[in-house]
Amino acid sequence: MSDALFTDLYELTMADAYLAEGMEGTAVFELFFRRLPPDRNFAIAAGLDGCLDFLEHLRFEEEDVAWLRRLGRFSDRLLDALAGFRFHGDVWAMPEGTPVFPNEPLLQVVAPILEAQLVETALLARVHVETLIASKAARIVHAARGRMVVDFGARRAHGFDAAFALARSSWLVGAAGTSLVAAGRRWGIPIFGTMAHSYVQAHDTEREAFERFARIHPGTTILVDTWDTLEGVRKVVSILEADPDLRIDAIRLDSGDLAELAIESRRILDEAGLGHVRIFASSDLDEWAIEALLERGAPIDGFGVGTRMATSLDAPSIDVVYKLVEYDGVGRAKLSTTKVLHPGRKQVFREEADGVYVGDTLARHDERCPGTPLLRQVMKDGRRLEAGREPLEACRARALDAIARLPPALRGLEPAGTPYPVRPTRALVEDLDRIRAARH
Amino acid sequence: MSDALFTDLYELTMADAYLAEGMEGTAVFELFFRRLPPDRNFAIAAGLDGCLDFLEHLRFEEEDVAWLRRLGRFSDRLLDALAGFRFHGDVWAMPEGTPVFPNEPLLQVVAPILEAQLVETALLARVHVETLIASKAARIVHAARGRMVVDFGARRAHGFDAAFALARSSWLVGAAGTSLVAAGRRWGIPIFGTMAHSYVQAHDTEREAFERFARIHPGTTILVDTWDTLEGVRKVVSILEADPDLRIDAIRLDSGDLAELAIESRRILDEAGLGHVRIFASSDLDEWAIEALLERGAPIDGFGVGTRMATSLDAPSIDVVYKLVEYDGVGRAKLSTTKVLHPGRKQVFREEADGVYVGDTLARHDERCPGTPLLRQVMKDGRRLEAGREPLEACRARALDAIARLPPALRGLEPAGTPYPVRPTRALVEDLDRIRAARH
Repeated sequence: MSDALFTDLYELTMADAYLAEGMEGTAVFELFFRRLPPDRNFAIAAGLDGCLDFLEHLRFEEEDVAWLRRLGRFSDRLLDALAGFRFHGDVWAMPEGTPVFPNEPLLQVVAPILEAQLVETALLARVHVETLIASKAARIVHAARGRMVVDFGARRAHGFDAAFALARSSWLVGAAGTSLVAAGRRWGIPIFGTMAHSYVQAHDTEREAFERFARIHPGTTILVDTWDTLEGVRKVVSILEADPDLRIDAIRLDSGDLAELAIESRRILDEAGLGHVRIFASSDLDEWAIEALLERGAPIDGFGVGTRMATSLDAPSIDVVYKLVEYDGVGRAKLSTTKVLHPGRKQVFREEADGVYVGDTLARHDERCPGTPLLRQVMKDGRRLEAGREPLEACRARALDAIARLPPALRGLEPAGTPYPVRPTRALVEDLDRIRAARH
Repeated sequence: MSDALFTDLYELTMADAYLAEGMEGTAVFELFFRRLPPDRNFAIAAGLDGCLDFLEHLRFEEEDVAWLRRLGRFSDRLLDALAGFRFHGDVWAMPEGTPVFPNEPLLQVVAPILEAQLVETALLARVHVETLIASKAARIVHAARGRMVVDFGARRAHGFDAAFALARSSWLVGAAGTSLVAAGRRWGIPIFGTMAHSYVQAHDTEREAFERFARIHPGTTILVDTWDTLEGVRKVVSILEADPDLRIDAIRLDSGDLAELAIESRRILDEAGLGHVRIFASSDLDEWAIEALLERGAPIDGFGVGTRMATSLDAPSIDVVYKLVEYDGVGRAKLSTTKVLHPGRKQVFREEADGVYVGDTLARHDERCPGTPLLRQVMKDGRRLEAGREPLEACRARALDAIARLPPALRGLEPAGTPYPVRPTRALVEDLDRIRAARH
């Protein structure tokens, strides 16, 4: 089945209407969000590579067109158009890893209206999950204060695609790696992992399990909490004392009071002269739990973070939308009760002072404002440009650099008193006023 | 890339150890959850078909094995085993659509320990997302009191796979259909959808947009809130009065106070003799919002539900786990602080009185207890049995029937005062006590 069918039905019924009406004008759609989720001071743009990949390979297979035909609800005109469908549009976008704020376009599609409309659902889905997770993961990485954060969430992410997005997006914002092997293969992200409780349980004694595992995987991490955590740590000490050739580089705590257990484990290890054995912790972690552990002085060297990062548990969605802002050269708006939309194709400028971002300007596409323009052209006539082929490593370096340039209050976990300033230009406000006036 | 790499790294490091140690015994792993999310009185088992599909087609492609080899962390013994890997295990499961409670196995894998271990991550991910969404969607369908619920959430689901799971799982528990075309193609789920705001915006006037769309798609639904909702409804009336050949079967409200707007819209339509034009509503809906609308007497005939169902927003995860309960004929447990596990392979019996489920018994696999056994064998030696090939329609019928048999307090939206009773048998409790005693 073609990816092209990953679309809401209304994209097809509208496409049919555009064709019937001979509406072949160029549309500009912008993808943005209106509000940040609670407790978020910024989002991190992500998902662009997947969007461009989708657009480049967009085809309706013959069998899919035949199936659509059998539904009996579309014109032959549409079905013929779909059979030969290619995306020929231009795309402008914020590079992945860019901090982004409400009402700023992350993605801008400029294409014949039928093409731009048809890709709505897929682009939203792609940008949504990756931006959502990158934004959550950035908070978790921040809370860890330079200690290693590893994505352990594949099993609780919402399906396979989400698990890939999780590994990629958390790596993008500074995670040290992932447990998901497939993500290592696909993007070269470092992979981590050692043993589960099942391995310990499958052995007659815990000691036997530890000893054998360390022999087979020198330098491994040993999971110590299957029976009694501190007893487990003492077994690690005893095994290493009995056989100086064995190498165990870390232990993992996965239940109980992690701070208390980490402090006790550290003491036991240090007293045995095992100061080099690190302590890794997992179990229901997120930015708040990590901050609390570090506040309590827990000597933890790395965190395995699962469900709460995988699902962005406290805020599992961002209200991303994909809105028509221009058709056939004319700015378009929407004035319904609460969801006002600035018309016209836009650019975003970001100003910096002394290495800190101080504010953005939301401008018409053809305005020049102080600061750096954030939207870059990444696709032309349906083909990726060089700017649309950034290696993930480069996006990661951008994210780390850019997050460090955010005002300190925004980087913290607490809601910043004052949101980051994003100001529309006078021209943009006047465009909206003009449309309002014309409608009243 | 093979799906087989959709695994946490530790499954591979453990597999390597099992091989090195010559551990070829049969393992029994059970997949279950320990707690229901807040506000849930039951979960609905889902995701089995995807699990069986994964197991049947599990292969490591040559290139993937070559990549694993280059990592330099696995033995040749493991890499050779992966090159020829097939899943040969037996699987027992609750059929999809079965209400399920904490500590009841949804899935039971009986296989050589290496095979059973390797598939952990994928099985958890599959069951997690589908069970999560089915359980949320069941509440939304219940709240709608027989009115149509349509999945509109593809764009805010966590990626493509999650959007498929959403369409399938919500249909499983009684949704009328989905907006996702691909899900219609894949499973024959009815698809719904008409027009977006962009269609209206792309026209010079709203009236022109409505009229043309109705002409091209007779019997369509018209989105009336792009500018002013009630003005939009009046335009629908005026268009139908001007041309009696036009057919508009419904309007859609997508912003504002939906109850008030529905009442006013109904009045306007009825006064114009358009009692047959139905009212469809969307915009931030979930079970609570729908209940509130209906309590206020909103004359809404159908609901389009997006983000909140797509992400199970109030509870975006369930703590599903996959635990070793038996190895080489010996029951296995885990006694760490808070996460106690009953050892041994199990069966679940459900009792019914006067058409209402009254309680379950969690038993040893070889016990016979009153009630219907819920775990059925669906795969033998890695091949699906007939019971593992249920059409989705049959699972849907089961879900609707079974939900209707739940005690009424459990079907409601509020947390039931008393949880559904799930009692372990004496034999099961004794097995745990025996393991506890042996460890102390």
